[in-house]
Amino acid sequence: MAKARQDGSDNDAAQRRVQMADIARLAGVSTATVSRALNHSPLVSEETRRRILELAASLKYSINIGAQNLRLKQNRTISVLIPFDRKIHQNLTDPFLLAMLGSLADALTEQGFDMLFSRIATDELGAAAAAPFDSGRVVGIILVGQWGRHQQLNELAARKVPIVVWGAQLPQQLYCCVGSDNVSGGMLATQHLLEQGRRRIAFFGDIELPEPAQRYRGYCAALEKHGIAVDPRLQVSTPFLPIGGSAAVETLEARAISYDAVFACSDLLAMTAIDSLRAHGKRVPDDVAVVGYDDIDQSAYFHPRLTTIRQPIGAAGRALVAALLALIDGTPAASVELPTQLIVRASAGEERAAPA
Amino acid sequence: MAKARQDGSDNDAAQRRVQMADIARLAGVSTATVSRALNHSPLVSEETRRRILELAASLKYSINIGAQNLRLKQNRTISVLIPFDRKIHQNLTDPFLLAMLGSLADALTEQGFDMLFSRIATDELGAAAAAPFDSGRVVGIILVGQWGRHQQLNELAARKVPIVVWGAQLPQQLYCCVGSDNVSGGMLATQHLLEQGRRRIAFFGDIELPEPAQRYRGYCAALEKHGIAVDPRLQVSTPFLPIGGSAAVETLEARAISYDAVFACSDLLAMTAIDSLRAHGKRVPDDVAVVGYDDIDQSAYFHPRLTTIRQPIGAAGRALVAALLALIDGTPAASVELPTQLIVRASAGEERAAPA
Repeated sequence: MAKARQDGSDNDAAQRRVQMADIARLAGVSTATVSRALNHSPLVSEETRRRILELAASLKYSINIGAQNLRLKQNRTISVLIPFDRKIHQNLTDPFLLAMLGSLADALTEQGFDMLFSRIATDELGAAAAAPFDSGRVVGIILVGQWGRHQQLNELAARKVPIVVWGAQLPQQLYCCVGSDNVSGGMLATQHLLEQGRRRIAFFGDIELPEPAQRYRGYCAALEKHGIAVDPRLQVSTPFLPIGGSAAVETLEARAISYDAVFACSDLLAMTAIDSLRAHGKRVPDDVAVVGYDDIDQSAYFHPRLTTIRQPIGAAGRALVAALLALIDGTPAASVELPTQLIVRASAGEERAAPA
Repeated sequence: MAKARQDGSDNDAAQRRVQMADIARLAGVSTATVSRALNHSPLVSEETRRRILELAASLKYSINIGAQNLRLKQNRTISVLIPFDRKIHQNLTDPFLLAMLGSLADALTEQGFDMLFSRIATDELGAAAAAPFDSGRVVGIILVGQWGRHQQLNELAARKVPIVVWGAQLPQQLYCCVGSDNVSGGMLATQHLLEQGRRRIAFFGDIELPEPAQRYRGYCAALEKHGIAVDPRLQVSTPFLPIGGSAAVETLEARAISYDAVFACSDLLAMTAIDSLRAHGKRVPDDVAVVGYDDIDQSAYFHPRLTTIRQPIGAAGRALVAALLALIDGTPAASVELPTQLIVRASAGEERAAPA
């Protein structure tokens, strides 16, 4: 972020000038008078000064020194965006996204902020994402997911829109990103299945997307460490949708290859896959061991209770909000990679076998 | 709502006057000049008129005729509130509340509105709930749940805050309410269990709250229709929390009474109860048949797949938004009771037995 921010003071000054001109026009006075009023010059009458200050406050104009702190005092609203893909315009029902939304709402409430929540199409993720900030309605933006718009997000960061993104760390990333350690998450899941004696481990997830791609890298690394060749027929690209798990099971079955385990890139995929495996007469974990990803609440009381990789959803909301507030305050906010953790329950075998 | 709105035009006029004075003060002109400018009087110069119109727009002032429509054009933000109870400050993880939040986000997006989402404590449900409307940040409020604040909500409606509430229809209700038909939902669930030959049907839900209370009335009515006495020991008041289902099962077990079915007031309670019954060595549905309430997405791939009472969550979001937009537009919005529907899956027995 350091590079992206280095010309910040010039731009801020430009923005101040424009807004000062607005105030002058609306108050029916000159820009010089506004400037004098804001600087408590004796050349401006008390009545005019009060009028200009009130107008400045109404227009959310940030006065002079400590501008950002003042802005925070006046406007405590953060934009939260969960985009949708026009091609598969799904409703907002994904349990992980909803849990993240709840976590952000809680974290913002703790900090005394309101959330301006909007859904926009992924192809609007450039200018439209920044619109509520540009118009002064919010002081910063939290975006859940990168949605294949890495370049547009870099552009927003380059023009110093305060934005923090939930997603994967990528090369040449100018924007601040909070996410979990996907590579080690993929390794932990695969390692656990290998320790259960499984050797034909299917991978469910769309490896065109950054996070599943990183989890797949961890999966491949764990297999290679065990001297097992990666079989691309065991990888099934399936969307993060309720139909995803059963679609992936049908694809695997159609390929007519053997498999004794599934590592699914979300708990939703894992649960719907288990439901579908059951319909195919396969017992979980006896015939097919399943590990999910996310550790949404439901994993703890699903049947069989789901072994999964925990993304710390509560901590994620707080980390996103903390990074954004730092950015707004003018502090460079480093990207954060939260740790992932294996949660052993029943869906991949209750006990750990000795490593093969 | 008709009574609550009858003096609306006077109040609106008062509000207009106050705002006109604000514009006059900020523009450094008289109220009469503002009035003339807004009415295109030739007595006001074009420059002054343009300045005043721009100022009015910046301050979200609603001009004259069609004020409400204009307000809608300028400000397309709706406040959505999901309160929390200070005593049990739970995080926002309830799958039904999150699904409702997703549904509202989708319905507002369809109508071109943003959502200002906030959590407030239930004891602030009077003035604090109306604050974003009173300050002009939003044009209306959607509140999810009544949270025992019936009187405060009536007061908000009486002073014409545009508010629509998700919840139960109650006597002496001034505010517009959208909810599902809880009494018939309770009857449908209980009737289905009776048709499966169950006679000792436990009820899980806090009957101090309006919606569970109405479902309990439906439960009692169905039992009485079948000539079965209501046994109060089978009713367990348990919170809508992840611990709710297992807490209720433990309570029932501690009472050492026999039961062959459970009607739970949410799918979350049903699922966590099933998990707990399983831990007690009871098979679902063989030993204990279970019916839930809500039909959240997860019910379709839970194991056993959950028989439940569907609340139409997608339709609920659209109905809440439609009622609120009507209210904002000055149309009296009648309360709406959405139909509930029995969804037969596996957790209460796959087939229907002949009624006893």
